[in-house]
Amino acid sequence: MSELNHYTEAQLRAFTESVFLKIGCSEQDAKQAADVLILADMRGIDSHGVARLSGYVRLWEAQRVNSKPQMKVVHETPSTATLDADEALGLVSGPAAMRIAMEKARNVGSGWVAVENSNHFGIAAYHAMMALEEDMIGIAMTNASPLVAPTHSTERMLGTNPMCFAWPALNHPPFVADLATAAAANGKLEIAQRSGKKIPNTWVQGKNGEISEDPNELKNGGSLLTLGSTPENGSHKGYALSAVVDLFSGVLSGANFGPWVPPFVSFLPVQPNLPGRGLGHFFGVLRVDAFRPKEAYFNSMEQWINRFKSAAPKDKTEPVIIPGEPEAALFAERERTGIPLVAAVEKDLNELAQKFDLRL
Amino acid sequence: MSELNHYTEAQLRAFTESVFLKIGCSEQDAKQAADVLILADMRGIDSHGVARLSGYVRLWEAQRVNSKPQMKVVHETPSTATLDADEALGLVSGPAAMRIAMEKARNVGSGWVAVENSNHFGIAAYHAMMALEEDMIGIAMTNASPLVAPTHSTERMLGTNPMCFAWPALNHPPFVADLATAAAANGKLEIAQRSGKKIPNTWVQGKNGEISEDPNELKNGGSLLTLGSTPENGSHKGYALSAVVDLFSGVLSGANFGPWVPPFVSFLPVQPNLPGRGLGHFFGVLRVDAFRPKEAYFNSMEQWINRFKSAAPKDKTEPVIIPGEPEAALFAERERTGIPLVAAVEKDLNELAQKFDLRL
Repeated sequence: MSELNHYTEAQLRAFTESVFLKIGCSEQDAKQAADVLILADMRGIDSHGVARLSGYVRLWEAQRVNSKPQMKVVHETPSTATLDADEALGLVSGPAAMRIAMEKARNVGSGWVAVENSNHFGIAAYHAMMALEEDMIGIAMTNASPLVAPTHSTERMLGTNPMCFAWPALNHPPFVADLATAAAANGKLEIAQRSGKKIPNTWVQGKNGEISEDPNELKNGGSLLTLGSTPENGSHKGYALSAVVDLFSGVLSGANFGPWVPPFVSFLPVQPNLPGRGLGHFFGVLRVDAFRPKEAYFNSMEQWINRFKSAAPKDKTEPVIIPGEPEAALFAERERTGIPLVAAVEKDLNELAQKFDLRL
Repeated sequence: MSELNHYTEAQLRAFTESVFLKIGCSEQDAKQAADVLILADMRGIDSHGVARLSGYVRLWEAQRVNSKPQMKVVHETPSTATLDADEALGLVSGPAAMRIAMEKARNVGSGWVAVENSNHFGIAAYHAMMALEEDMIGIAMTNASPLVAPTHSTERMLGTNPMCFAWPALNHPPFVADLATAAAANGKLEIAQRSGKKIPNTWVQGKNGEISEDPNELKNGGSLLTLGSTPENGSHKGYALSAVVDLFSGVLSGANFGPWVPPFVSFLPVQPNLPGRGLGHFFGVLRVDAFRPKEAYFNSMEQWINRFKSAAPKDKTEPVIIPGEPEAALFAERERTGIPLVAAVEKDLNELAQKFDLRL
């Protein structure tokens, strides 16, 4: 990584905010959207950080993102709500929905918000982790462009549909499990494409369902496999989990679902006769002290983390990892070293700088 | 299957109720506990039906089940509660917790109940499916005896920790995804043991973490692998999901968690210095009309199911399955044909009949 150029968090944040201002976002929304992307880069989820900035701009240019949304709650109970995001950036509507869910959790113990008519929301972890500051458990999920085939199928019916669960801890980084329900998300294929390497034969299938080790298979009409990869190894479980994310995000909210979810890339057209509006998310928040006194919860959580960290390792150089631990370590590292950008992303940002008369 | 003896639902239900009465359950609790086991048999989850009845009796004999529990809510908000199950059968405490969650959902849109001090609750689907009758989404999960190793570990730290999501449908069977978070649950190993067959090398590992195709490996100190099986194929995701079930069921409720979860089999001792009480469950209920008008929800759900059923199959003889569809078909079949029991289970039930002076 030493040959890559590094940028400070502040530098990338300021630039990203400026780009969102240029596409018409309010100051508050531009700050919010940038905050989501920068956290991805800080936590090492490079595929979902500033690398995606030009993608959001292209969606705006294609008039598929509304930079001045009038979001509104269209259905509500004391512990639930449905938010019409008015085609907002998911980077803006996600945090707005989480704030509603947290307010409800403060009032009645938990809060659950479905979002329709939205767009790609960045890393699920950003949204789920908002709950941590108030000693709440955060849950975030979203549906996404169809790339994944259900078990027994060759058709792209589901997105990589991530789910994230964030749990507050006391003396350790929080437990943050943020996982795509596919066997491997698209980012891993892109790394193999760039390096010209084969991939394991459990990540994608060819267009007729044949086994493949070609990282370009997806471009050639193939599809990603669900977590579990094969029926023998539980692909039906990955399919079921991905379907659950789709039901929460699309069917419960009024957004599109399954193969109708609008694609993130602007060069793919939105299909006609859609069953819903935009793409959908689902968020949940539970106050830990809605179940136990805080101190009791934190004691158990510390004991859980300590015990799992000390589980007998197969290889002493590779201890058991607590979900979220590597990302917290990368965050700390990048606070010191800055954020490394690969050349393709630097080029992308420089093109944005030129387009909008900004400096990176 | 034709050589197996078949029993009517009514016959097995009456016998099962009688056994629960004999161990001291109230009439209401005996009916409830039997209902959970019989539904498992009717849906074809044979490993979790009357095949487990003698196991519950042995737990009662070992004084690890209280057949006359005084369950009580020990913590509460309008949308949440924690239930102390007083060492009840999970077959009894699970439905009690679901009733609380459903009452809260009626009042404030959703209900979430953590249960501590409980025992094995049978199939997760029973509990989650209770919500369906009132057009609510049901969620059920539980932690369980440690048999599964986290990624990078050789130690049994987690149970097969199932999660179930049940979604109401209109003209189709409900969507019911009930999945263990291990690559393959113990029942599949037992089938291979009985037939003397090898298993895929992605289900268990030997005690030093070595690859194994031996269905007896677990008995020899090995451990089950998480969904995903290998780091390359996403075992860390299966580990994270299993951990989330453990946090909801144990850490949030005050029950035991991780390697401290008391074993289901009575011949394994409970460890000293436990961090919590009994094992734990977690239940959630969301009213669909807390998010959208019912009609809109059901229209989308029907469209979702129809579209997925018609997804392009890899092999025309194997269409895409909606989670819960095979179990609903088996239920209908067994209403006609009765429930087939393997000889070992028949023998088990006959021994119970003798012990309690009952007739099967």
